Amino acid sequence: MRIDIITVLPRLLDSPFSHSILKRAQDKGLVEVVVHDLRPYSTNKHKSVDDYAYGGGAGMVLQIEPIVRCIEELQAQRSYDELIYMSPDGETLNQGIANELSLKKNLLILCGHYKGVDERVRQHFITREISIGDYVLSGGELAAAVLSDSIIRLLPGVLNDETSALSDSFQDGLLAPPVYSRPADFRGWKVPEVLLSGHEGRIEDWRHQQAVARTQQRRPDLLQDGSSSAEAGN
Amino acid sequence: MRIDIITVLPRLLDSPFSHSILKRAQDKGLVEVVVHDLRPYSTNKHKSVDDYAYGGGAGMVLQIEPIVRCIEELQAQRSYDELIYMSPDGETLNQGIANELSLKKNLLILCGHYKGVDERVRQHFITREISIGDYVLSGGELAAAVLSDSIIRLLPGVLNDETSALSDSFQDGLLAPPVYSRPADFRGWKVPEVLLSGHEGRIEDWRHQQAVARTQQRRPDLLQDGSSSAEAGN
Repeated sequence: MRIDIITVLPRLLDSPFSHSILKRAQDKGLVEVVVHDLRPYSTNKHKSVDDYAYGGGAGMVLQIEPIVRCIEELQAQRSYDELIYMSPDGETLNQGIANELSLKKNLLILCGHYKGVDERVRQHFITREISIGDYVLSGGELAAAVLSDSIIRLLPGVLNDETSALSDSFQDGLLAPPVYSRPADFRGWKVPEVLLSGHEGRIEDWRHQQAVARTQQRRPDLLQDGSSSAEAGN
Repeated sequence: MRIDIITVLPRLLDSPFSHSILKRAQDKGLVEVVVHDLRPYSTNKHKSVDDYAYGGGAGMVLQIEPIVRCIEELQAQRSYDELIYMSPDGETLNQGIANELSLKKNLLILCGHYKGVDERVRQHFITREISIGDYVLSGGELAAAVLSDSIIRLLPGVLNDETSALSDSFQDGLLAPPVYSRPADFRGWKVPEVLLSGHEGRIEDWRHQQAVARTQQRRPDLLQDGSSSAEAGN
């Protein structure tokens, strides 16, 4: 898989993609992530890529010309399965969308900034608009990192232990049960005895009961609709 | 405001906090963000902070002792309004929660990693568990960055133009209307004439109509409940 990200703040994405699982996935050759600075695609000598909004009001708008130049240069090199715009009014990301996108070959992600991008980019180039949640961020960069992370960790071979993704992606529509590690007793707070019992069957039953109870208490909506959005995440 | 973040991957957070609005907010002294590496709080010579889960299964668990050492060291220095754990099964972040947290003085954010943290940390120390959405990430670090961004940009003085946050945070429960910038005509795709008219009243009416239409089409749920989660974001 290849992910191209277009942004006015390419350096903001340096560290998220150079650590932990995202780094390992790239080192293993399982994904190639290329971040493109929009500024060199500016049409003026000041290298600006934003301008005032027609009709007035606060906040700048990312102009259409630099973005189209960049998109078309990339499209000349390969074909993209989706041109994604990270946007507050896009469809809300869930595990089902991450699963679906993890099967694609080439993804292009455009990060908004300031008041957003010129609407004509969205009308004529973008194939999919995604929001990571109902809150406002400074720009689309962190949203692009979140989307990329949710996709990349699903690629076969990225996680060390294949079963790890299955057990935490809640394919059964349940929140995860509580986890405990050493010591078994810390200040008198003890690990539930069943987990120390060694009885695999009893442990499995306990975990399932805990998962159901936690889901009923915290996210009863997940038990009702049973859709792909039933998978919960971070 | 001060935000302390506890993580096993402190370097992952370097670039998000050293660019753009998050950097500016810190440079202006409006927020202090301190990222703490959990590893020095390890209780063993290998400096490990994770161990196998009791009861077996894939994935490691962040142990209670290093976390409690770190939390108590910080609590000895100041009192925290909230001890937040970024968790898939927490309450889902929305603009209302960001607004609420932006009024606090000291926040402590614990990032999960691997299979999560020992449940006893959540039971005895954490005061609030927050999820940024229904999807799985490699760890809580990007989630902590997203939460911090959503909060920090709301602090008075952080955004250059005070009206910018008001107009994009959808205080009226609507998605934002489309925006356009120069050129007025690009490949025959034209900016709506009303925006070039100079009639402030007509422009305002048009924007409101567009916002309502877009919200009806994309997020009718926002028009129905009218709650604080009606504010949409990135």
